[in-house]
Amino acid sequence: MPRAQDVIRRKRDGGELTQDEIAFFVRGVAHGEIPDYQAAALLMAIFLNGMSGRETEALTDAMLRSGEVLDFSDITRPKADKHSTGGVGDKTSLVLAPLAAASGVCVPMISGRGLGHTGGTLDKLEAIPGFRVNLSLREFRAVLERVGFAMIGQTETLAPADKKLYALRDATETVESIPLIVGSIMSKKLGAGLDALVIDVKAGSGAFMPDEARARDLARALVATGNRCGVRTEALITDMNQPLGRAVGNALETRECIELLRGEVNEGTQSLLDLSIELAARMVALSGVEATLDEARRRIRHALHSGAALECFRACVEAQGGDARVCDDPDLLFDSTLQEVDVKATRAGFVGKIDAAEIGRAVSCVGGGRARMEDAIDPSVGFITAKKIGDEVKAGESLGLLYCRRSTECADAVRRIANAYDIGNYPPTIQATLVKEVITA
Amino acid sequence: MPRAQDVIRRKRDGGELTQDEIAFFVRGVAHGEIPDYQAAALLMAIFLNGMSGRETEALTDAMLRSGEVLDFSDITRPKADKHSTGGVGDKTSLVLAPLAAASGVCVPMISGRGLGHTGGTLDKLEAIPGFRVNLSLREFRAVLERVGFAMIGQTETLAPADKKLYALRDATETVESIPLIVGSIMSKKLGAGLDALVIDVKAGSGAFMPDEARARDLARALVATGNRCGVRTEALITDMNQPLGRAVGNALETRECIELLRGEVNEGTQSLLDLSIELAARMVALSGVEATLDEARRRIRHALHSGAALECFRACVEAQGGDARVCDDPDLLFDSTLQEVDVKATRAGFVGKIDAAEIGRAVSCVGGGRARMEDAIDPSVGFITAKKIGDEVKAGESLGLLYCRRSTECADAVRRIANAYDIGNYPPTIQATLVKEVITA
Repeated sequence: MPRAQDVIRRKRDGGELTQDEIAFFVRGVAHGEIPDYQAAALLMAIFLNGMSGRETEALTDAMLRSGEVLDFSDITRPKADKHSTGGVGDKTSLVLAPLAAASGVCVPMISGRGLGHTGGTLDKLEAIPGFRVNLSLREFRAVLERVGFAMIGQTETLAPADKKLYALRDATETVESIPLIVGSIMSKKLGAGLDALVIDVKAGSGAFMPDEARARDLARALVATGNRCGVRTEALITDMNQPLGRAVGNALETRECIELLRGEVNEGTQSLLDLSIELAARMVALSGVEATLDEARRRIRHALHSGAALECFRACVEAQGGDARVCDDPDLLFDSTLQEVDVKATRAGFVGKIDAAEIGRAVSCVGGGRARMEDAIDPSVGFITAKKIGDEVKAGESLGLLYCRRSTECADAVRRIANAYDIGNYPPTIQATLVKEVITA
Repeated sequence: MPRAQDVIRRKRDGGELTQDEIAFFVRGVAHGEIPDYQAAALLMAIFLNGMSGRETEALTDAMLRSGEVLDFSDITRPKADKHSTGGVGDKTSLVLAPLAAASGVCVPMISGRGLGHTGGTLDKLEAIPGFRVNLSLREFRAVLERVGFAMIGQTETLAPADKKLYALRDATETVESIPLIVGSIMSKKLGAGLDALVIDVKAGSGAFMPDEARARDLARALVATGNRCGVRTEALITDMNQPLGRAVGNALETRECIELLRGEVNEGTQSLLDLSIELAARMVALSGVEATLDEARRRIRHALHSGAALECFRACVEAQGGDARVCDDPDLLFDSTLQEVDVKATRAGFVGKIDAAEIGRAVSCVGGGRARMEDAIDPSVGFITAKKIGDEVKAGESLGLLYCRRSTECADAVRRIANAYDIGNYPPTIQATLVKEVITA
């Protein structure tokens, strides 16, 4: 049996921890046998001295084993999921899950809530009246079998060590450590019994890790760890220098997703659809439903254009207790009692950069997001952007519409959003590529 | 008001903390306003990223101000003290304090207890029947005024932040950090209202910091911090590759000190006397009682040879409630009911190296020391070495005598001590110099 001090000392001195030492530590933290201060010291030592691939795998494995590991082996379809590191207006889950499910993949998606400048899939789903994200595991399995995908929140029994470790990381400024991020993400994802996992690592002004080189390091570590743990894993590094699609805010984003599933796409939402198709196609290919990525893309497009994905989404909404009429009339999600405030460009020119995180924070401050996990949110408020990077604007022209409860209370948000658009005299020279890089095993 | 997370983040990223940030942190830890896990994360970040001289000074100052700062300004003599980083058989305090006090320096000595392989001054003093180390501050001041020196234990009111921080460092493997060591030592020493401080930094097999280069770094940081904090400070780096003097064990060590004060010196104790004189002389010179070190050394030797130092020691023992007859007959300290076990050389040759820490641990395991602070000790047991580095030994010749309660129970200690002597075919080529280096401001 290792001693906590010996484990701390080894990592402090830059050594590599054994699988036993890591397992001992994670178990000790999860069960409260190792005090928080020793865990905190080890977290800082890991932050500063890093972890090898072998250590990261052991960490993920130990965190995974701290709780229940779901077993969907009786579901014959291959199981695949997507994880995103989070961004502003990032709503691909609601589009790609029905696309993949309608294409023969089972998608047992365990999602999170929004925090800070980013939203969360659970909050978006809850914008649908009646939609229940807190299914029991028995219900989750039943929906998966019937519909092909289901979306629930993190359960108490899944990787409980992560909850404890995350709270400590948050309090000790050790959140941004790549091996700790990998352990946290992968232990929760791999606990759902997947065959394949596609990870969307966001880089840019609206991402948690704006720097592309750091995002690449994270993507590589995620892919390496997933594959080491026996799950076929790929990562895309994608652009998050502006909101994805047009909508930011829970109900507005859900409406946008249903519109896409209904075949209604426009200039502002094309990139969201493209990325959702690409991620879904990779889930299909990686899980072996199609032999090549091109065939997978064709299959996904067919699921979209045939309406099969929309029907799959409708079946999920119904199965999870939601009002499925939103599938026929997505405007039902729109709250017409909201105040609509035009955010105007203060000068003429071309949109060069957008501070996407600032837009996320502005929507959060009118009630659309959370500063702390316990905060309540208003699902209806949000922002729909009219301009994207490269667009020309006239002085006083609308940059987008802010939807809020009281127009008198949103002056700050309007100002922040307006300032988030960097308008220059010339069009930006660099065109943002949506998928910047693909990391495979 | 800084936030704990911001302070952790800055140090995590290798930045320099401000005086305010350090004061906020130390106060928060001392008052329990900052949770242990945040303190632990900062300690690890300090361990790995270090602290500048300015930060170390601010840390020392903040720890010092976490409690009472003694004010002896009404005592007209200059106040000086010595601190040792600790070694095996290191008993200079009992010799140098009366030497310095008899030479015109006031020595308000606040000492510690033994832990692990090293002994502590308080335990050695308590080997004298009746000697009280837990004087009130009023009694401490009275003895200082009457005798010129007094020796007490750490009080609850002096640098209380250190107690809390030390417990955390011990549990989080951040003990060996130089700035943290400096803060701990100096906050306690400077709280006693000193004008001058001489530090004995031990290097070698019996020291906490065996490596001489690390010991030098520590000595420099201690001297710089002392002087920055307004106390004239010097450090000596001294040899701790073998027990200092001959005795290891509380009563045996106290007897050895009284013998030296009585002018009884032998080959094995000469180095202990030399070092005690050198440290005391530096206290005298540094506090301005004599203008030069040579004059200070002459003054100290006079205090020894005139018997003034012995009388000073006798006065202290009496004032602190001890049986002063030990000054006339130091053998009163020797417990003749002890078993005496000869530790024999297993081969002939020359003593090349001695694992002094192992001798300390062997004495500790027959009851002479503590593994944990709450352990009781037997003041009488111990070891008196007959051989030092460079000495020639015959096979089966005595390396020294182990004094223990039951000879049957000390087989392990005997074996460990015998193995601590590295006996080679030739005399060691390198002569150990007692004082390796002097670090001045």
